[in-house]
Order: sequence, then C-alpha cells, then structure tokens
Amino acid sequence: MFWLDGSLHEKPLQPFDLTDRGLTLSDGLFDTSLARNGKVFLGEAHLARFAAGAAALGIPLKIEAAAQALDALAGSISDGALRLTLTRGGGARGLRIPDDPKPVLFGAATPGRGELIFSSLALATTAIRRNETSVSSRIKTLSYLDAILANKEAQTKGADEALFENMAGHVACAATGNVFALFESRLMTPPLSAGVLAGTVRAFVLAQAKACGLEPVEQSLPLAEWLKADAIFVTNSLRLLAPCNALDGQPFASAEHPAIIRLQDALRAAVTAECGSF
Amino acid sequence: MFWLDGSLHEKPLQPFDLTDRGLTLSDGLFDTSLARNGKVFLGEAHLARFAAGAAALGIPLKIEAAAQALDALAGSISDGALRLTLTRGGGARGLRIPDDPKPVLFGAATPGRGELIFSSLALATTAIRRNETSVSSRIKTLSYLDAILANKEAQTKGADEALFENMAGHVACAATGNVFALFESRLMTPPLSAGVLAGTVRAFVLAQAKACGLEPVEQSLPLAEWLKADAIFVTNSLRLLAPCNALDGQPFASAEHPAIIRLQDALRAAVTAECGSF
Repeated sequence: MFWLDGSLHEKPLQPFDLTDRGLTLSDGLFDTSLARNGKVFLGEAHLARFAAGAAALGIPLKIEAAAQALDALAGSISDGALRLTLTRGGGARGLRIPDDPKPVLFGAATPGRGELIFSSLALATTAIRRNETSVSSRIKTLSYLDAILANKEAQTKGADEALFENMAGHVACAATGNVFALFESRLMTPPLSAGVLAGTVRAFVLAQAKACGLEPVEQSLPLAEWLKADAIFVTNSLRLLAPCNALDGQPFASAEHPAIIRLQDALRAAVTAECGSF
Repeated sequence: MFWLDGSLHEKPLQPFDLTDRGLTLSDGLFDTSLARNGKVFLGEAHLARFAAGAAALGIPLKIEAAAQALDALAGSISDGALRLTLTRGGGARGLRIPDDPKPVLFGAATPGRGELIFSSLALATTAIRRNETSVSSRIKTLSYLDAILANKEAQTKGADEALFENMAGHVACAATGNVFALFESRLMTPPLSAGVLAGTVRAFVLAQAKACGLEPVEQSLPLAEWLKADAIFVTNSLRLLAPCNALDGQPFASAEHPAIIRLQDALRAAVTAECGSF
C-alpha cells in the first residue's frame, strides 16, 4: 500500500516528477518503522527523528502530513513495515538547492508477520568505511548505495549484514541498524559522532539499560575490542533487537545472553503496551 | 525535454514506480553531457563510462537505448545539458539486490547557450571527506547528497564550489568535476584510486597534455601542495575546463595561464570537429 498526496493508493506506479531531487541526487531522507495491530511502535520518536533530519537537511516537512501518512499506512496493513520518504522535490538542473523547494512526501506499507523481530544475524566487516565527516552519516538520507554495496559484500562472505568501521578505524554501525556490545554489565554503543544514526530502538535500549541491570556507555572502539565482547547485537525498527551470532566468522552466543533476553523482554512489553499486541 | 520508455515527453510528471530503488535507496547512476548543434560532445566516451559504471554496480543497461535517448534529447534542444539516469528499478523492501532487476532508464535535456563553458570558479575545501574506500566514489552514482551539502557549505564561504579532500588527506575532486594543478610544465591530477570519477573531459585533457607541451601526472597530493600550484582548474562536461580563480580565498590567475588557454583551445577545436560548431 502506498501513500501520496494525502491518500492511499494500491499501485506503486504514480505520477512523479522526473526532476525530483530525491530521485536524481538522493536529496532527501526516509524513515522505517514497525506497525503492530494497526499502530506504529515508537511512532512519536520516529516522527521527531524524521523532523530533525529534515530540518538538518533544510527540507520543509509538514509533520501533520507525515503523522497522517503513518497512521493511514499502519491501519492499511495492521502488521508490517512502514516507510516514509521526504524529498526536496523537483528543481532545475544542478546541485544548487532551490530557494523555494516543493518537497514531496510519500509512504509505503509492506505487510508482514514480524518474522524479522529478534532474528539473529551474522555480521561481516566491509572495506567501505562509514564517513563520519558528513552529517549524512547521522541522518537516514536517501544516499544509501554504500550500504547496499557493503551488504552485498557481506553476503558474498556468507554473512547476513555488513558492519561498518568509520574513517577513524572504530566500529560505527551495521548496514541497517545500530550496534551494541556487552562487556560484563557494560552496554557499549558508538556515539552519534562516530557516524551513526540516532536509531529509535537505540534510544529505547539506552534508556532501558539500567532497569535491565546494565551500565550504558557511548564509546568508540576498534574492531579488535569488539571481538572480545561477551555478546553483540544490532537494533533497528523491524528487527528491534537482533542478536549477532557471528562477526567475521567468530561465533557469539548473543541470543542466549541473559541481558539480551531481558532487553528483548522490555521491547516486547513496550510493543504490547503501545500497540495493544506483540 | 524528457526521455522515458523509448520516447520524448515535454512534461516531467510521468508514471513512476514509488518502489524504484533509485528513488528509495539511490541505487543507480547518471551521466551528464554537453549538447552542441544537436550532437553530444564525447558521446562515445560518455556511453562507455555509463556502461562501465552500470556494470560495476551490476545494473543491466541496454546501451542502444541509452544512445537513442542521448541522440533524441540532443536533437530536441540543439544546445544544452543532457542527463541520463539508470536505476535498478522497482523492488521489494530492503537493501537486498533483486535477483531479476527491471532497470529504469530515463533522460532529461536542459537547453542553454553554454554560458558555463570555460567559466571561472572559486573553490573552497569542505569538512566532508571524499570516501575513496567505496567504489561509489569512482562512479557517478545517485548518492550525491554529500556533494550537495559540501557545495552549500562552500557557497556560505563565498566560493562557487566545494573541493574534497579524501580520507587519506589528499585532494580528490570538486563537487561536480575533476581537478588539475599545474606546476611549471607538470599537469597533475589525482588518480582514480583517490576516489574520483573517470571524467570524460579529464581523460581528454590527459590525452591532450603532451600536444600542449605538458607532462601529465596522476598523483595524490595534500592541500598544502595544491596551494603552491601555478594554476588550478576543474573539468566537467558542461564547463569543460573551468579555471580556478581562488582556493580557500587564495587567488590564482588560472584563466590567464598559457597552458590553460592552450587546453581550452584544444577543447574548442574538438567540440567544433565533433559537433560542427562550438
């Protein structure tokens, strides 16, 4: 199901401006969220982050329209994945940002029973570095090709997803999510300055850590330190909290780690409280 | 004027798949070229590079369709800027590359009298580094947001265009073109491995250097060395060869440099020979 110009559409083929800068120059951003029982999990956090990203790129966003789109899409599928996309809209040839942009907002909903939730992942590092020198590394922009290429590389190595190091040589994030490492009771994740997205589940996990007996720490560490972790996991809006079962071929028994089970229980309770069912 | 599905269209609003991966994930590439007198300057080189980029990304391209689009678009405006865009087409949600992609090719032509040709530029370095660890730094992909942001930063500094250094701390390229520096008779430009596009005018200039009394050298150098150059210029398909009149506020009398005038003469002669007029 698709949302465009204030209403739902069944077909993806819609009138679209071929000069749209989102299409021609990846000048835009998106957001992915989880629908359960017709409601958006962490919906307010998703809208707030979407608005913050749009503001950082200087793209005007009507937040009420984004909220309406999310609600309509979630209602249309009940359970599944939602996506909002905001582009800077059509414009003259060239890079220069139009003085009077006409942004385009559209959305899509993909039904699904949540088979990704809590599913485990094998990670493999990629030769492509995360470029923390650009603000685009901290926004879910449409410039996503490096993540596609890195994931393809990871899959040729037999892994499920790529793990990015950044220019400074520190672990930054996975291709589609934030990463965490457990060292005894320390729960460590790279700071946003490492070139990572302010993930909504990342924020949830950091906020819930103490209640789960963990000490949250935002810190950059090289890969060699990550390989010494007791457990590693990836967070994103569709997997919620995905235990890492291998990193560059080294096995991790993350799914059985008691702290990870406690964090997953906290997520399950939050989804149930917010959406009415898990 | 626009080209889509084998024919020209006057209006940019066309039926387009909202799941197109070029639009949603910048999974695609483009090419910009110069039309003079209804013909494409360096047309064969543009098509060859477009095909090489598509092959590197694993996106099937019907080269005859691309050639037909370029010819039709050039004929439609006589003089101006042409753009071809190839995306991996529609697909299921997520990063995974479809097993059976349905690529989408479209084009646009913008009439113009060539006011950009040989026009001078002020450059300013940007805090955003060129990420030479990704093959996408050497292909004209749709992931162009960093160039937009870098150019905006350069313009707030009073310059016309951004100059990128790469992760290794060497000068790489401008936001919309390759860069060259003259040191006496040495004509220096960064190698492709520095994270730069294989520009068609870059290749032309390297091939013409000896006939213009210059020794072409592909070499990476830090910014401090560039600031000692006798002259600096940018090459791209619409400006052809743009003398740099300032870099980070330091003036350069590049437009008056005899070697640059000789290279511009060579370009003028080549356009005239290939297109029938300049």
